[in-house]
Formats: sequence, C-alpha cells, structure tokens
Amino acid sequence: MTLCRYWRLDRHPEGNTRFERFLSLHEEACAPLAPGEVRIAVEWLSMDAGTRMWMSPRTDGYQPPLPLGSRMVGLVLGRVIESLDPAYPPGVRVRGFGQWADVATVVPALAGLEVVDETVADPRQHFGALGMNAWTALVGVREVAAVRPGEWLAVSAAAGATGSLACQIGRNLGARVVGIAGGAEKCRFLLDELGVDMAIDYRAEDVSARLSQVPGGVHAFFDNVGGPILDAVLGNMAHYGRVAICGMIAGYDSDVAMPGPAKFDQVLMRRLRIEGFFIPDFLERGAEFLPQLRTWLDEGRLAVRFDETQGLENVPAAYERMLTGRNIGKVIVRL
Amino acid sequence: MTLCRYWRLDRHPEGNTRFERFLSLHEEACAPLAPGEVRIAVEWLSMDAGTRMWMSPRTDGYQPPLPLGSRMVGLVLGRVIESLDPAYPPGVRVRGFGQWADVATVVPALAGLEVVDETVADPRQHFGALGMNAWTALVGVREVAAVRPGEWLAVSAAAGATGSLACQIGRNLGARVVGIAGGAEKCRFLLDELGVDMAIDYRAEDVSARLSQVPGGVHAFFDNVGGPILDAVLGNMAHYGRVAICGMIAGYDSDVAMPGPAKFDQVLMRRLRIEGFFIPDFLERGAEFLPQLRTWLDEGRLAVRFDETQGLENVPAAYERMLTGRNIGKVIVRL
Repeated sequence: MTLCRYWRLDRHPEGNTRFERFLSLHEEACAPLAPGEVRIAVEWLSMDAGTRMWMSPRTDGYQPPLPLGSRMVGLVLGRVIESLDPAYPPGVRVRGFGQWADVATVVPALAGLEVVDETVADPRQHFGALGMNAWTALVGVREVAAVRPGEWLAVSAAAGATGSLACQIGRNLGARVVGIAGGAEKCRFLLDELGVDMAIDYRAEDVSARLSQVPGGVHAFFDNVGGPILDAVLGNMAHYGRVAICGMIAGYDSDVAMPGPAKFDQVLMRRLRIEGFFIPDFLERGAEFLPQLRTWLDEGRLAVRFDETQGLENVPAAYERMLTGRNIGKVIVRL
Repeated sequence: MTLCRYWRLDRHPEGNTRFERFLSLHEEACAPLAPGEVRIAVEWLSMDAGTRMWMSPRTDGYQPPLPLGSRMVGLVLGRVIESLDPAYPPGVRVRGFGQWADVATVVPALAGLEVVDETVADPRQHFGALGMNAWTALVGVREVAAVRPGEWLAVSAAAGATGSLACQIGRNLGARVVGIAGGAEKCRFLLDELGVDMAIDYRAEDVSARLSQVPGGVHAFFDNVGGPILDAVLGNMAHYGRVAICGMIAGYDSDVAMPGPAKFDQVLMRRLRIEGFFIPDFLERGAEFLPQLRTWLDEGRLAVRFDETQGLENVPAAYERMLTGRNIGKVIVRL
C-alpha cells in the first residue's frame, strides 16, 4: 500500500503570506488507480504564481476555483511508479500538473503529462530553461510582444523564474532589455548574470523616470505584474508598442479585480496592442519550442538560478517566498 | 482678393458644451498661396470627435495640442479654387484635413488631400460610406477586431457616424451585431435601419446584464467610448476576444487621462487582445478600402444618415451636438 502525503486547501487564502493558515498537510493511503491514471513519485515541485488564482473564490479567473478540501494543484517532476497508461510506463521521468504531494496521481491528458528528456544533465532544467516558465517567456517575448532585433524590451518581475528567462530570450533574439525588479541584489543579478542593458529597482527608483531614458521608448513589454509597474511602462511605450500580459502578480492576493492601468488611454494615443496569454493554451506547442530552448541552454545562453527548498513540509514557506518576491530565479521544492 | 471666415481656437475648452466660449469667428483676407499650397472653397465640414483631443493642452495625446490662436482644424470637402499643386487643379472636388473655414488653405501631403470620385451621386458620402468614418469602421471591425462570420460583434456609440458604419460592416461580414447607444430613438434606428441583432440603451438598461445574454460571449468589440461601457463589455467577452479601441469619447472632455477599465484583468483571464488604432495611420490604404465600401454603398448595404447643419456660424453648435451624442449618424455642416 502506497502512502501519500499532500497539502489540502482548507480555506481561501488572504494575502500572500502564512499559507499554513489555509493549507494543511495530510497523509493517507493512495486509492487504487482508476483506468488511464498514472502515479508519480514526485522529485521536485514547481512553485508558480499562477496557481495562486486557483486558491481564490473568484469565478472570473483562469478557471473555476479549486474546491475547498481539494489537494492543492501544481506542476510536478518525478518518476512514474504505477501506471494504467502504456505511454507512461513505470520508471520514466515525467512532468505535468499534479498535486502538492510526495505521490501524485494524474490523468495524463488533463495533467499535460510529458516524458522528459533524460539527456539533460540537470533534471531541474525541466522546470527551468526547458520548462513552462521558459515556454511562457518564449511565447510572450517572441510571439505576443513580437520583439524584433534592435528594439527595446521591458520585463517586469525580471529576476523571477519567467522574467529572468524573458530577459535572456529577448537578448538572444537581438533586443535590448530593461529588467524591472525589486531590490539592489536582484538588479545586480540582472546586470551581471543576465546581461540586461538597464536594470530598474522599482523599490528605490522612479520607474517611469528611468524608462523615459530609453531612447525612442519601449517597443515590447513582457508583464508579469500589472498595477503601478504596468502604468509606468504604458506611459513610456513607443508608438505601435506591444504588451504581453503574462501575469498580474500585483492582484493575485486579492479576491477582487485589480483596477485597470491609469495610463490605459495610451493604448489609443500610441496605438498599442495589449494581449493576455496563458501558457496552458500553448502546451501542445511545447515540442516546437523545445529545440530552440535546448540549443540556448546547451550554448550557455539561457541560465537559470534555482531557489531550492527541501521537503514537502516546507512547501507553504517556499510558495510564500515566491509570491512575495524574496526569491531570485526559479523556486522549487525538492522532496 | 479672397476673404476667409474661420474659427479660431482661443482657449482650451472645458467639457463638451458651449464651444463659443473657446472659439471665435474671424474674417480676413487670404494670404497668397505658398509654393505647393491649394485653396479650397469648402462645401461641407465634417464634425469628428477625434479633433476634440487637439483642443486640449494634453501633450500625451495623438499629436501635439493645437496652439492657441490657431485656426481650428478639421476635415473639409470642397472644390479647389486656387492651386500651386498641379495634382489638384482648380475645379476638382477634394477632401482632406483643412480648417473650420469657408476657404481652407492646405498643403496636400499634410492634409491627406484626395480628389474624390464625382460619380458618387451624393457627394456627402465622401464623409459617409466612403469617408474616414467608414475606413475607420472597416479597419476596426475587419482588421483590428478581426471579426469572423458567425461571431458576435459589439459596437459602442453605435448610432454615431463610425459606429453605425461599424454595425453594418459587421453585419455585411457575416457577424451578429450588438449595438450600444443612448436612448430609445437610437436603439430603434439600430434595429430598424441598421439591422443589428440586439440594441442596448445604456441610459435605460444594465449593459452588462444585457450582454450576458449574448450566447458564448462577445468575440469582437469596436469601442469608441471607453469608460463604463468598455468595462461592461470586458466582463462579457468570449475567450480570445478582440477589442479595437477606436476612440475614448468618455475621456475627451477632460484634460487628465481617464482611468483604465476596472475589468482589465479579464485581458489575462480570458486572453483578450486590446488594440488601439488611429485611422490617419491607414490613409495610404484608402484606395484599397474604397472598392469594398463603394460596392456596399451601391448595393444599399451601407446606409448613412446625415445630421446636417447649415452655416459656418453654427459649427460650434453642430460640434457640441456630435460630442454630446444628440445626433444620429454623421454630423456635417453645409456652408
């Protein structure tokens, strides 16, 4: 009999701290697999801001709220230990949407389950340069914000998992990059490790004033944050600029919608395009993105710093670290 | 010696009423033409909401504010009476950006000056089904909002010049159309004369509640208004919906930016695309748009109701009619 330890969502969180008030750790025997199901011994969990929305009671979000009492949902990387789907035999390493648990049980099609490439030296890169954050960054920078060589790309939450990849992808595509992050340490990381052209510390600097120094304005903006950062960038866009809305971290801790940008009228005045995207919509295109990402990874042009926490019991703390921006790079939990 | 009567911008307007406080009527002798200039005896003036922005001191608008003391700028239709550009000989009827004047003097390239097709029975159609409002509607509906047959298109300010054309173009392209306008008379016009599928009177009805009845949500929105109407539509968009921002009438009477839509986060949640456009950017494509518009006009599928005022001295009153939405259809002034 396999035992499973997991985090259960007991109440809708308030704010982005002290998730132990809303989640509880449980252990119980795994139910027998239903037809088509696959069971995974989880090696790493990925901490993603997008999942914060699922904890909210809001019904106008990405998808219906996770019912209270459910196992908390998140991306997992691990090895199949039991399977009723021959495409995922025991022993293969897989990645997909599972649970915050040491043993995850999934329906492959619903989980977006994929067998990962074992030739990658550090398997954590399946949550890094080859993972969903990287797909998100590639789709957002190259397809939605449609950045072109020589243009200026701005990236918010630039020291985070997705933002740090977006900065590098912009640079790899020939753009000049402005990274916006909170704190001097993150800005040093942006300049020294990611090679951005300009780093703005939104905690210490006037973002709009700094952006006004971008010659010709910002052509493309990869936004993870929304709120005042989006406002500051909208006021400094070039005509015909494109904004890829990847996330709205600034609003995730609230059960009500965040107000729209005060500079929204610049959409008309400067003929901007603002487009929201959601990476699960692009899951089936992962195979198309992977070769480019793998090439950059192998060439050393797509570096990922991992912020790794040990142990299932520390998931809420790791999640809070990520949501409150105390991390640099990709927050994962090793089980 | 040719005399010219014109309206001069004396002060930046406050609000959208009583423009006589900010404009004054003058008469003086025309200066001799400078090289390349063309002089036009104006037959009709077009009243356009977009020019309201030029009267404002705001520097983050479409273009720099019109300097106080200038002749007020607007679209004119008339006959060339004197010309230093052989492409526009005396006697031809032309349309372009001139002045609120009985005699307009223009530089053709700056004015977007065009010789119009004299085979059109009613020359006013060069401000109607073949004019800039029609190009705007065609670009907005077909290219920016990218409406497809069978989809639902919503149009705000639907009984106005551009909106009424957008409704018909949507219908002609096979979409189902929701027109949003203020007042029962306008809604009757939408249903009876434009053939929309649903008309919403935003003064008397809950726009969001009515839009929630659109099966599957609104796929494409042609917005002239911004503000609460945009909010109501954003909350009722289908996933992957497109919003073409053509105007923000709700904000034109203010010297400060209008706040962004409260439902802005739906851009992310429903993966919407919001795009501003500005029809002067498309001037050079007019020749491409005209054949389609002319065909629809000749087939009786692009009707324009004209709201015609007589006399240069009544321009401020006609302008106010248009800006405050007391018109149905295209507001013009016959000189």
